[in-house]
Amino acid sequence: MEITQPEIVAELNAATLHASLADASMESMNLLNQIADEYPEAISFAAGRPYEGFYDAAQVHEYLQTFCDHLRSERRMTETEIARTLYQYGETKGIIAGLIARGLAVDEGIEAVDGSVVVTVGCQEAMFLVLRALRAGSRDAVLAPRPAYVGLTGAALLADLPVLPVHTGEHGIDLDDLLTQLRRARAAGRRVRACYVTPDFSNPVGASMDVADRHRLLEIAENENLLLLEDNAYGVFHTSAERPPTLKSLDRNRRVVYLGSFAKTGVPGARVGFVVADQRVTGDGGDRLLADELSKIKSMLTVNTSPIAQAVIGGKLLRHGCSMVEANRRETDVYRRNLNQVLAGLARRFADCPGVTWNEPTGGFFVVVSVPFVVTDAFLQHAARRFGVLFTPMHHFYGASAQCRQLRLSISTLTPERIEQGLDRLAALITERLRANGGTAAQEAGAANGAATPPAAPAGPPPDGAR
Amino acid sequence: MEITQPEIVAELNAATLHASLADASMESMNLLNQIADEYPEAISFAAGRPYEGFYDAAQVHEYLQTFCDHLRSERRMTETEIARTLYQYGETKGIIAGLIARGLAVDEGIEAVDGSVVVTVGCQEAMFLVLRALRAGSRDAVLAPRPAYVGLTGAALLADLPVLPVHTGEHGIDLDDLLTQLRRARAAGRRVRACYVTPDFSNPVGASMDVADRHRLLEIAENENLLLLEDNAYGVFHTSAERPPTLKSLDRNRRVVYLGSFAKTGVPGARVGFVVADQRVTGDGGDRLLADELSKIKSMLTVNTSPIAQAVIGGKLLRHGCSMVEANRRETDVYRRNLNQVLAGLARRFADCPGVTWNEPTGGFFVVVSVPFVVTDAFLQHAARRFGVLFTPMHHFYGASAQCRQLRLSISTLTPERIEQGLDRLAALITERLRANGGTAAQEAGAANGAATPPAAPAGPPPDGAR
Repeated sequence: MEITQPEIVAELNAATLHASLADASMESMNLLNQIADEYPEAISFAAGRPYEGFYDAAQVHEYLQTFCDHLRSERRMTETEIARTLYQYGETKGIIAGLIARGLAVDEGIEAVDGSVVVTVGCQEAMFLVLRALRAGSRDAVLAPRPAYVGLTGAALLADLPVLPVHTGEHGIDLDDLLTQLRRARAAGRRVRACYVTPDFSNPVGASMDVADRHRLLEIAENENLLLLEDNAYGVFHTSAERPPTLKSLDRNRRVVYLGSFAKTGVPGARVGFVVADQRVTGDGGDRLLADELSKIKSMLTVNTSPIAQAVIGGKLLRHGCSMVEANRRETDVYRRNLNQVLAGLARRFADCPGVTWNEPTGGFFVVVSVPFVVTDAFLQHAARRFGVLFTPMHHFYGASAQCRQLRLSISTLTPERIEQGLDRLAALITERLRANGGTAAQEAGAANGAATPPAAPAGPPPDGAR
Repeated sequence: MEITQPEIVAELNAATLHASLADASMESMNLLNQIADEYPEAISFAAGRPYEGFYDAAQVHEYLQTFCDHLRSERRMTETEIARTLYQYGETKGIIAGLIARGLAVDEGIEAVDGSVVVTVGCQEAMFLVLRALRAGSRDAVLAPRPAYVGLTGAALLADLPVLPVHTGEHGIDLDDLLTQLRRARAAGRRVRACYVTPDFSNPVGASMDVADRHRLLEIAENENLLLLEDNAYGVFHTSAERPPTLKSLDRNRRVVYLGSFAKTGVPGARVGFVVADQRVTGDGGDRLLADELSKIKSMLTVNTSPIAQAVIGGKLLRHGCSMVEANRRETDVYRRNLNQVLAGLARRFADCPGVTWNEPTGGFFVVVSVPFVVTDAFLQHAARRFGVLFTPMHHFYGASAQCRQLRLSISTLTPERIEQGLDRLAALITERLRANGGTAAQEAGAANGAATPPAAPAGPPPDGAR
């Protein structure tokens, strides 16, 4: 054996790694987590986690038991078959796809056709599967609202798929701008594979589309031959009992790929989500569903979603007639109470404060506060150190280099007492900054309504490594 | 609003989807599963699943309990903190990385440095994370033994990373050919990012590298500045108590990325694997571990591995002093018994049969039988229908268009009775074919030792959607 020119390098050069890793948006999560970790006593409006006041370690056993009882009685399995179902490799599309389909019918009026549901490792994997499938070449791109949910931005980076931003207003995605961007992209030779939307309580803005806009969006999809990726992680959490229809429930022509999550309605720790992809794939002699293609990709990404984790979510579904609306009655009350309290608390503290405004979502986890100064990470650091309060600077959803005069408050995890205390701290912080700014603040105030000029960078990741 | 030229297409053209989906190797799994599903009564030497004779649905509760006790007593968590650990989003790198590191020290003599372990959704996700990180441009490629484990082939397809084949002999990867292929690839302008190897009982061949070759491989890696990806899913299952050292335990200069799986040693249904990536990443002003980069990718792929699933594996580790060797004493006995029985049974049936040979692995799940005719999927179909026996045609590991005179027998799941019965059926099947072939068989026999000419296509996926 001949060995040529020893060249000992025990290091990898960062420049030789995938481009996503150099994107600042993959890093800002770590940065925000670091600040949160440094100040564990701070009151956090940052984390977009579900309320944990009803958690109890015994539940996991109850859910598993319920699911096993279901296998025993409804599916007539022997004990050996039950153990095999939990412990062995399982079907790539998952073992609770049927229960999920039932739940979609009950809660959303969605009739998922047979074989169209793929159970995924959280909604995050579902997004990657879809974007990976849709990215065939360098001309391909997807449209998405800006500011963007960071999970979408990140998954697109991993799939080498550019995200083209669409303006988002008070009522969600701006449909006129969607058409403008779509045509502009096509004119530039882009193949626009889909448009990502969150009609209900988008992260980070908390905005929802009204029903007329939902119909119009479907019409645009139809006329423009556009696929829609509907992310509905928060739709259950409306403050009123009347929930608007999902796009998928209105979808007559399989224009909508539906992305579902049990992170907010089940438990995040199960890491179970799903995708409904009933689009037909043809043209190579076959005729199958997009779900079949996603399942093939999944088999090479995670093989299948843990059946144990699926059983936990399956058990929770079974205990509530497959309705996550039912299963989350108590949680929905908490979120409604918290949201109202935060909105009322903001009004009490900032009604007469020039330049401080906020949106008024009718559900979900997030409220966006606009202030007459740029909200930087240094400002967050200052807030944590001096005032003991945490939030998410909105520039993280516009790309790390963006400047933005907004911050996101998450209402999901706090108690009423902590909310009041936290808002007091926030008010003290903002007042301090406005006083320091003096005349500058007043000048800036005029330009401070809504988002600051959004630069062209992709959006940043969430404060807690998740939604 | 103006809508231009309605163009109603409710279908997706297969040609517009990611190239991996058109690769036959992504499809052969489905094909093999279909045949298996059609003949549920057939004796299956096909599935590479772990033995399930000791499974019991109560175990999941016991493992969870053990892990929660550990959080309570060793990590001093309150009940609220325990529930939060199981149910909420968790650290991207995982909550049992420490237990895994302990286990690696106990079982393998591997000292994983702090922060170098990332818990993944099975070893499959670990492979994708590493390949995604290492693929920065179209010049990049990885080396891998041929025939190849289909999970590697599939993950590489998803990462748009070509796999360059290296010949595999009776003792695993051929090191001279490795050097040849490496230099050839570099001369052709390729950037070879790593070489994937399975030193212990590779899938599908069951071959293992001897200790001298392991040292020589590390020397090559050092001299050639090559990263090694060591997959060790089966190393625990040696028939002798003396196990050769893993590459990672011999690795003095962080040349080895170690890919671990609990699918065979824990339970497949937890979908828990891990990667040890202690390589330094520098050159952009930072200095961090490759594990940190993998963790960033993971945060946008699956967020984190289900803490509930991790707790199940954590509990199993804790119950056996973190040693999966200890935890699998009974299983190892079963695999040893089965392997010996299959090898003896083949000898009894085929010793005097010209052209029928097989390798003799010293552990793991697989034996490869060479026959003097091409083993097609039609032949498998015939075997299932007429003889009630299943196996995996080896061409699936060479690429779907390959022709190959070998079949893979998996020894892991059967009882002694079923093995004897299955081998009888296999003997009847092969005898029938040899008689039908008549003179042809004798002619072909001379060329039938080892693999048939391996064509240049990538390898096919496993029979059960998994290893």
